[in-house]
Amino acid sequence: MQLALESNAFFWAIEYLATFCCGLLGGLWAVRKRYDFIAILMTVWLTGLGGGIIRDVLLGIFPPVGVSNKGLVITTLLASCAVAVVYPEVDGLKWTMATLDALALGLYAVNGTQKALMYHTSGMTAVFMGLITAIGGGLIRDVLLNRVPSVIGDSHWYTVPALIGSVLTVFSTRAYARGVLSFTGELVCDLLIVALVVCLRMLSVKFDWKVPGAIKRKQYRF
Amino acid sequence: MQLALESNAFFWAIEYLATFCCGLLGGLWAVRKRYDFIAILMTVWLTGLGGGIIRDVLLGIFPPVGVSNKGLVITTLLASCAVAVVYPEVDGLKWTMATLDALALGLYAVNGTQKALMYHTSGMTAVFMGLITAIGGGLIRDVLLNRVPSVIGDSHWYTVPALIGSVLTVFSTRAYARGVLSFTGELVCDLLIVALVVCLRMLSVKFDWKVPGAIKRKQYRF
Amino acid sequence: MQLALESNAFFWAIEYLATFCCGLLGGLWAVRKRYDFIAILMTVWLTGLGGGIIRDVLLGIFPPVGVSNKGLVITTLLASCAVAVVYPEVDGLKWTMATLDALALGLYAVNGTQKALMYHTSGMTAVFMGLITAIGGGLIRDVLLNRVPSVIGDSHWYTVPALIGSVLTVFSTRAYARGVLSFTGELVCDLLIVALVVCLRMLSVKFDWKVPGAIKRKQYRF
Repeated sequence: MQLALESNAFFWAIEYLATFCCGLLGGLWAVRKRYDFIAILMTVWLTGLGGGIIRDVLLGIFPPVGVSNKGLVITTLLASCAVAVVYPEVDGLKWTMATLDALALGLYAVNGTQKALMYHTSGMTAVFMGLITAIGGGLIRDVLLNRVPSVIGDSHWYTVPALIGSVLTVFSTRAYARGVLSFTGELVCDLLIVALVVCLRMLSVKFDWKVPGAIKRKQYRF
Repeated sequence: MQLALESNAFFWAIEYLATFCCGLLGGLWAVRKRYDFIAILMTVWLTGLGGGIIRDVLLGIFPPVGVSNKGLVITTLLASCAVAVVYPEVDGLKWTMATLDALALGLYAVNGTQKALMYHTSGMTAVFMGLITAIGGGLIRDVLLNRVPSVIGDSHWYTVPALIGSVLTVFSTRAYARGVLSFTGELVCDLLIVALVVCLRMLSVKFDWKVPGAIKRKQYRF
Repeated sequence: MQLALESNAFFWAIEYLATFCCGLLGGLWAVRKRYDFIAILMTVWLTGLGGGIIRDVLLGIFPPVGVSNKGLVITTLLASCAVAVVYPEVDGLKWTMATLDALALGLYAVNGTQKALMYHTSGMTAVFMGLITAIGGGLIRDVLLNRVPSVIGDSHWYTVPALIGSVLTVFSTRAYARGVLSFTGELVCDLLIVALVVCLRMLSVKFDWKVPGAIKRKQYRF
């Protein structure tokens, strides 16, 4: 079975763009902390490719794409060089960057889920893999920089859109595998899922949607 | 060779219970920090199943049980929902919960060691795997929440009982594999080992047993 | 193909020494924080063998050498016992220890790169593996102790020599595999690379060489 999103130069271009932007945003943190270029490189690489590395390790794919795909590694290298120079501009274009980060979230969720399904995992495992690909990079970067991960501290919808996207991808990919959807049909489906993830993420930031925490109970002292 | 502790519905029930309680206790930290439900889910899942995930990755078992065993994943999901509602009660039943946490420590140590031995590792590697299964989940959770891991900060006996349990399990499982112990004999042995781990852990908290640090030397300024 | 550095008892002796010293230095942090012996053990083990564990997991070698090589595990055990007693002396011999730490950096970079090449990875992946073996242990230890990793905070040349060493090792090992270099020739090459890494590292500390950060831009507020 061929992965729809990996079959086409156009989508590869989108993935490179997503990795680049995702890396830029990640590297901005290292620049703000006045870290050196090595730290910028590590931060950009982990933000862009860390999620895929964890996914590949959990699926048993060696060596993971994040240390073996030359194109992606060079993309993070370029993103590191870029962010070390144009960080004020990256910082200024916050909404554009946030949109591209949301695009990366959607693409990674769809791609991660499909890659897992290609390795014959169950639907549940595939959803886990989609989620991990989408949010794992940011997570591992924050752990390394000794910060509370932004997916935990920032309670806007971040994991939720990725989760919805991964679940929908399981359905669309299975429909394709069973012949219910044509190749083009699945491609359209994948794009719609990515668009949905981007919309949900951006709307949650715009309208301040938050994930609720534990139920409030009277007289409980934290 | 059949793992004694995995051969029986009764022991599976105990394992689910242990994962549930272990997850509840882990989730309590996320609730106290007023994190959102996504963070509670992640914390509970890592506390309950993170150790097993690291063990499976190191043994080369893909995908790890923590992302592929539906029963265990649903257990952590239920524990997350439960802790978001009944956290004051969980907090109140501290000793009950601590006992169940110690039970999880013992079960994970025995199970982790036996699983490694089933994959034909050396005894030393199996002891490592037992230890990692037992303490890895709490460790990875604390790393993610950006805290000094409780196994390091809290110097009560936590790793020590797990270590003793893992070493004893290597002997009992090997005795069984060589025909020295019958299946029932090994089952009894495993239960005794779990009981020993629980006792050692609870006694260390009760009587404030601590692991010593480096030897004190005069005139050394820290 | 035989790894030059693993073919000879003399080089194994050097590797044990490097692991021992690297572990001693790592354990010193745990002693300073007044952690208990379990924490000292974990810190020493991760500093000495953590990099190799990550490398083996990414290369798909199970179980990793850090939980299966008896000699290396016992070496970290001995280093833990040693540091718990002689920590003032270790602290006093800072320059000797730093030199031995730099030796470990060089040896790990060369060994890690060669091990990856033996598993038929690309040169780029092998460089990643050399780097991860060299700096991964310190990284994972700092993450566990909840500190900003010293490879990020300390901007002296640490990653740079390891990177140069790994790249040169790819060339020398490939020259050997193609018959351009004899076995002895490669051995000499490897030793020269290790020596170069040690020199670069020590010179950077001595003369305060630092890796530059992002380019300074006017009017940008951090």
